[in-house]
Amino acid sequence: MVAGAFSRDPETSAAGAATYRLPSERAYTSLDALIAAERAREDGVEMLVVATPNHHHATAVKAGLAAGLAVMCDKPLTGTLPEARELERAVREASAPLAVSYTYSGYPLAREARERIAAGAIGTVRKVVVEYPQGWLAGDDGSKQAAWRLDPATAGDGGCIADIGVHAFHLAEFVTGLKVVRLFADLAAVVPGRALDDDCQLLLRFDNGARGALLASQISVGERNGLRLRIYGDRGGLDWAQENPNHLWFHHADGRTELIQTGDQGLSADAQRATRTPGGHPEGYLEAFANLYRDFARRIRGEDAPLLPGIDDAMRGMALIDLAVKASRDERGWVEFQG
Amino acid sequence: MVAGAFSRDPETSAAGAATYRLPSERAYTSLDALIAAERAREDGVEMLVVATPNHHHATAVKAGLAAGLAVMCDKPLTGTLPEARELERAVREASAPLAVSYTYSGYPLAREARERIAAGAIGTVRKVVVEYPQGWLAGDDGSKQAAWRLDPATAGDGGCIADIGVHAFHLAEFVTGLKVVRLFADLAAVVPGRALDDDCQLLLRFDNGARGALLASQISVGERNGLRLRIYGDRGGLDWAQENPNHLWFHHADGRTELIQTGDQGLSADAQRATRTPGGHPEGYLEAFANLYRDFARRIRGEDAPLLPGIDDAMRGMALIDLAVKASRDERGWVEFQG
Amino acid sequence: MVAGAFSRDPETSAAGAATYRLPSERAYTSLDALIAAERAREDGVEMLVVATPNHHHATAVKAGLAAGLAVMCDKPLTGTLPEARELERAVREASAPLAVSYTYSGYPLAREARERIAAGAIGTVRKVVVEYPQGWLAGDDGSKQAAWRLDPATAGDGGCIADIGVHAFHLAEFVTGLKVVRLFADLAAVVPGRALDDDCQLLLRFDNGARGALLASQISVGERNGLRLRIYGDRGGLDWAQENPNHLWFHHADGRTELIQTGDQGLSADAQRATRTPGGHPEGYLEAFANLYRDFARRIRGEDAPLLPGIDDAMRGMALIDLAVKASRDERGWVEFQG
Amino acid sequence: MVAGAFSRDPETSAAGAATYRLPSERAYTSLDALIAAERAREDGVEMLVVATPNHHHATAVKAGLAAGLAVMCDKPLTGTLPEARELERAVREASAPLAVSYTYSGYPLAREARERIAAGAIGTVRKVVVEYPQGWLAGDDGSKQAAWRLDPATAGDGGCIADIGVHAFHLAEFVTGLKVVRLFADLAAVVPGRALDDDCQLLLRFDNGARGALLASQISVGERNGLRLRIYGDRGGLDWAQENPNHLWFHHADGRTELIQTGDQGLSADAQRATRTPGGHPEGYLEAFANLYRDFARRIRGEDAPLLPGIDDAMRGMALIDLAVKASRDERGWVEFQG
Repeated sequence: MVAGAFSRDPETSAAGAATYRLPSERAYTSLDALIAAERAREDGVEMLVVATPNHHHATAVKAGLAAGLAVMCDKPLTGTLPEARELERAVREASAPLAVSYTYSGYPLAREARERIAAGAIGTVRKVVVEYPQGWLAGDDGSKQAAWRLDPATAGDGGCIADIGVHAFHLAEFVTGLKVVRLFADLAAVVPGRALDDDCQLLLRFDNGARGALLASQISVGERNGLRLRIYGDRGGLDWAQENPNHLWFHHADGRTELIQTGDQGLSADAQRATRTPGGHPEGYLEAFANLYRDFARRIRGEDAPLLPGIDDAMRGMALIDLAVKASRDERGWVEFQG
Repeated sequence: MVAGAFSRDPETSAAGAATYRLPSERAYTSLDALIAAERAREDGVEMLVVATPNHHHATAVKAGLAAGLAVMCDKPLTGTLPEARELERAVREASAPLAVSYTYSGYPLAREARERIAAGAIGTVRKVVVEYPQGWLAGDDGSKQAAWRLDPATAGDGGCIADIGVHAFHLAEFVTGLKVVRLFADLAAVVPGRALDDDCQLLLRFDNGARGALLASQISVGERNGLRLRIYGDRGGLDWAQENPNHLWFHHADGRTELIQTGDQGLSADAQRATRTPGGHPEGYLEAFANLYRDFARRIRGEDAPLLPGIDDAMRGMALIDLAVKASRDERGWVEFQG
Repeated sequence: MVAGAFSRDPETSAAGAATYRLPSERAYTSLDALIAAERAREDGVEMLVVATPNHHHATAVKAGLAAGLAVMCDKPLTGTLPEARELERAVREASAPLAVSYTYSGYPLAREARERIAAGAIGTVRKVVVEYPQGWLAGDDGSKQAAWRLDPATAGDGGCIADIGVHAFHLAEFVTGLKVVRLFADLAAVVPGRALDDDCQLLLRFDNGARGALLASQISVGERNGLRLRIYGDRGGLDWAQENPNHLWFHHADGRTELIQTGDQGLSADAQRATRTPGGHPEGYLEAFANLYRDFARRIRGEDAPLLPGIDDAMRGMALIDLAVKASRDERGWVEFQG
Repeated sequence: MVAGAFSRDPETSAAGAATYRLPSERAYTSLDALIAAERAREDGVEMLVVATPNHHHATAVKAGLAAGLAVMCDKPLTGTLPEARELERAVREASAPLAVSYTYSGYPLAREARERIAAGAIGTVRKVVVEYPQGWLAGDDGSKQAAWRLDPATAGDGGCIADIGVHAFHLAEFVTGLKVVRLFADLAAVVPGRALDDDCQLLLRFDNGARGALLASQISVGERNGLRLRIYGDRGGLDWAQENPNHLWFHHADGRTELIQTGDQGLSADAQRATRTPGGHPEGYLEAFANLYRDFARRIRGEDAPLLPGIDDAMRGMALIDLAVKASRDERGWVEFQG
């Protein structure tokens, strides 16, 4: 990181910059100021990370791309689907690349699972269970992080579905290589007084006919960040959980249960590339994130980075939020999902 | 066990009896023969265990009760709801008691969880996730056990929902003390050619407004008997899994995570009564089953056995099978559940 | 169980009998009385279980065998090695069999591990780590169970080493098929005022040159019954823990990690014979114990029961207690172990 | 990283530099060349990381300190104790600071455990079990990493004891706040033909009288990097394992078992400072390492960094290697340890 707009307040922004040991001259009070000043520098920024509340995403991404900057945007792409559709055009026309931080797809063993399924290790996928329980919004913890996520003005149309449901959704499609084509949505604001969902239950159908369930929750007291994906084929099964990310369970068709660990011999090239340390030296969330950044660096340099989530993944997430919220609210039953 | 009808074939039945070291004179070839002969003995049987395929349950239970025998019947009570309704009358009029083997409610820590919730340890229940994945019917293993479960003539209306779904359902109601009042059902026969469901996804509403999901499957390759129940209240959470039955996770509202083990100090009287060994000496499935039998012995002697599943629980299971199968088949959306 | 001497006090003994639903006439106040009365009955006892404090074992075993009863004796065989040596002669001359309840060798997966090693699955054993931490004697819990174990008059020469150390020792030899031939002992009474050891650290050499460590402790606060055995060969490793007894880890030489579960396909005949339920239906301590009883029933009937611990195993345990206590007390360094 | 001596061969060194995106002009072929050239630069290096085989440590550290560079040296400090003693003088006289990368002390929950013990949470420490099994040297994997560790010319006096034993030793002293004062050592070269130990068993006494065991091994097939520390006091116990570093088990004196996770509320300031992400977002080895670097940055700036391992810790490690190797070889029995 070489520069940042850390706050609208000059002092706060400078303090933010100091945290990262950046010179105060590169602490800005707005994205426009940042872009203008950095463009004038020979060593100006090449890449922009958008990590604001959702309602600012569209403007920031558009400004970044317009300035020729590569942009890594937090998920969801925007607060609402119409915003996203408008932004999508700008993205597709831009010369600079966009990536979306579906971080969990950066874990070595999530990539290993994907590769194994693609290679037929579990046969035809029949059933997918993806869950993502958290408990931090079971009450109101009074934090800024909670406040903007609970407010439609800053979060957009979705609460839990937009904050973590799209992660679960992306991971399921990423690992299986399948696409959701139909769903049933049951969203609710469990905590009284909330305008946005804090608990989501979705039933899924994939394009090969596989069945699935997606359970995401932010009121599951005691759960930290329990993203877990289980996939069952006609010849095997896989089970991976984010909180124990260096373990991947592989159920063989003949009944054997194998525990695959990050760094094991014989893992796929994708998993190896995403691994920094020898087996038994745990890697975590920051390394997964770094793998997305590394992929993005490749993309920026014009190299191949097929696993990096881009505008298509971003738009599928937005479509999911939009459809799930509406279908649940209107009790529409099973609905087709175009993505 | 003192007598049995182990087969219609006299030799096979005698061989079955020998397995249990019973005298061959008490090996019968039909239930009627057993009842007739045992009634004539001073030391004749007092209690009948019905562990046949489902389509025989109704006749056997009725015969047993009519002969004044206490009857422990495997779940589900019968193959179909109409059969169950007819049987229900006989049960309610009988002087001898009936119990249904929802075995998992016999585990000490399932009872501990129930007691804690009743005592308010997690506040108001908001969310219930109960899952029961198995993999043994992912293919056709050719076993007798598989054959009768997959055939409507012997299993009745439900496949997976009747075989294990009702276990999950009963456990969820047993532990929470709540009743399901509304549900959405998504059942399917995943393996081609099957007449009965082998994978079930249900979304639930409980009578206090709590939300829930019930996922039962018999095509989840690699899963053995993965019944697991997670319950989240507004002030805590509980997590118990049958395959590791001596561990109960208790998430406190203040963020602390406690691991409760069978045999720990301070457990409820119900849990203590269901425990035979000191902490660290694992108890399992057979002890859970024995706890139901012990409860039933109390019931037979006229003593109190409030945790023992009886006709009400049996009928709720039958109503669930019936409604889930039909609502899913007809894509009825959310349906009210009377139980 | 058909009879018992539950106490020297007639009322207490009768109450004990009632617990097991035995008629009061078969509740005795001494072993002699039991033997005399039961011999006079046509349906008298055939087998005696000695489950008293250690100092009574020798007399009771001798009396039982002299009366022609098969005897299952708790470990350790006696309180002291001289007592054991004297008893050994009686045992070897008796026509009735003796077994010693090294219970943990009754678990299906302990037997599976033994069979795999015998079949060469991990190559030559090089290293054995067996540990058995408990915490219940970290303080004085005031129980009868604690009192007699802490008193040399009732426990004999060893504390922790005699109570649980011998279990760990037997299991290590049972599973590896090797014999300890040399050891270094470091025993201590950690809690002030104790006359017997409550924490044991032993370093071992086996007869094939393999190295080992045995750590047993009763002052390890928070540990329940943490017996665990890890064995490393030149071509693989095995890892089994009593508190999670239906899981056995198998490390292949090529780096793969396999989780073997009770009930899995392809397990050895020994493991299958010791298993009562399908996979995923956990079995525990009582079933392990029952497997020893079943083996003993075979032995009594003159059938083969090669895994059942008998007088040789009992004497090795006694020799271990004797040597470990003395070698540690006298700081003898490495000592040869004859067993 | 701004410069490096990656190889004696100019091309290889330049290639190494390219990996880190360093300009080729800062890729050197010797440390002397690096120091000379960097001193001449205004933006020259301030800190040197010594990550060579052990036999180069002394020279490199000395040269770095002499040039006024802060030095972070891999453990062990040197190959032999005499080398270390000579270097020690230079270190103590140098104006620039030295740190030693006992990496595992950088994990948040290792620091939490240390703080809890210091605060009396488990009372007086009575028993310490620290183990560090690895399996990668069970055979000869032919790697460079293996080759230099197995050769006394490059590794020095110790094999396993120097490579990982000192990590376990440091962690035990770091977390307990106690010092080892007496030990019994049992080291061996298990794999035929090895000159250095590949398996270590140590029994320990700490300065408060606590007992301990240290088991380190590199021939434990299937183990990756299984460093684990268990500490039992008279009022509680703690259990932490490096491969699952975000979990810390706390056994309360009253029998309750608590699972503490990185990021939990109420953790100590030391743990919080060492934590980068919210709970449930796993941190790993690289973050632990980074915590040592961050501490070292503080030290370099003259700020307080009390947890950072320095020359005292380094010398204790060297003394351990020296004594353990000799005491084991000569079968000296228990020996005093000055450190």
